[in-house]
Amino acid sequence: MPDPQGTIFARIISGEIPCHTIYEDDLVLSFLDVGPLSRGHLLVIPKECKAFLHELSDESAAAIGRVLPRICSGLMEATGAEHYNVLQNNGSLANQEVMHVHFHVIPRYEDGSGLELAWRSGALEQGEALARRIRESMPGS
Amino acid sequence: MPDPQGTIFARIISGEIPCHTIYEDDLVLSFLDVGPLSRGHLLVIPKECKAFLHELSDESAAAIGRVLPRICSGLMEATGAEHYNVLQNNGSLANQEVMHVHFHVIPRYEDGSGLELAWRSGALEQGEALARRIRESMPGS
Repeated sequence: MPDPQGTIFARIISGEIPCHTIYEDDLVLSFLDVGPLSRGHLLVIPKECKAFLHELSDESAAAIGRVLPRICSGLMEATGAEHYNVLQNNGSLANQEVMHVHFHVIPRYEDGSGLELAWRSGALEQGEALARRIRESMPGS
Repeated sequence: MPDPQGTIFARIISGEIPCHTIYEDDLVLSFLDVGPLSRGHLLVIPKECKAFLHELSDESAAAIGRVLPRICSGLMEATGAEHYNVLQNNGSLANQEVMHVHFHVIPRYEDGSGLELAWRSGALEQGEALARRIRESMPGS
């Protein structure tokens, strides 16, 4: 099992490791990614130490959601970027490296720097049965 | 300028076009993507018609954030997936196709289906000056 208490992000939250802070409140911290995909690439994380988004409390998740538009707005204004991706990875198959929930905000520039995606879409089959199973599997349903 | 009022998502919200609903409240709608990258690929959108995340109200953005963990939890439980990506694209350079804010939740399976990413990271330069510019450019700062 991952140990979210011991990650580099937990040590940034505690102040043990410095960061270039973008935003901070009681529940959320945002700072520049030290290995950026493009200029201005930043992270938004909960102070709550959880590895995966589906483990996060409603309160932490709402706090991140609330501040994301303002952080994105500041990032666009400061960098001049007009396009960007928000990406949050869960698990090693999904490119997660630090086992503490984090949202990447990655500007995409005309020179091609930013997030590179391959998009191989298929067709939806038996959609209603699948939707019903997901609905019925949601906590509180 | 994009017209978020006229998109296919606005017509799904109004009920004009049907969808396989996962979740709905006053501010948020979630439904299966009809062109999935993998089994269970779904979308979470605000009912507020805005093209870009940085245009979204605090209230809509917080409502999406709050429900995302529970939607992801239901999706993992229903599909058996353990890894997944959450992706939100803004602008044509960043792979946005429908000009209405939407968060993709995309399971990633052992067979490789899901979101394919290329990760070409660089080094952070002049981080503190950049962080200060972003901080000072945030609305309300």
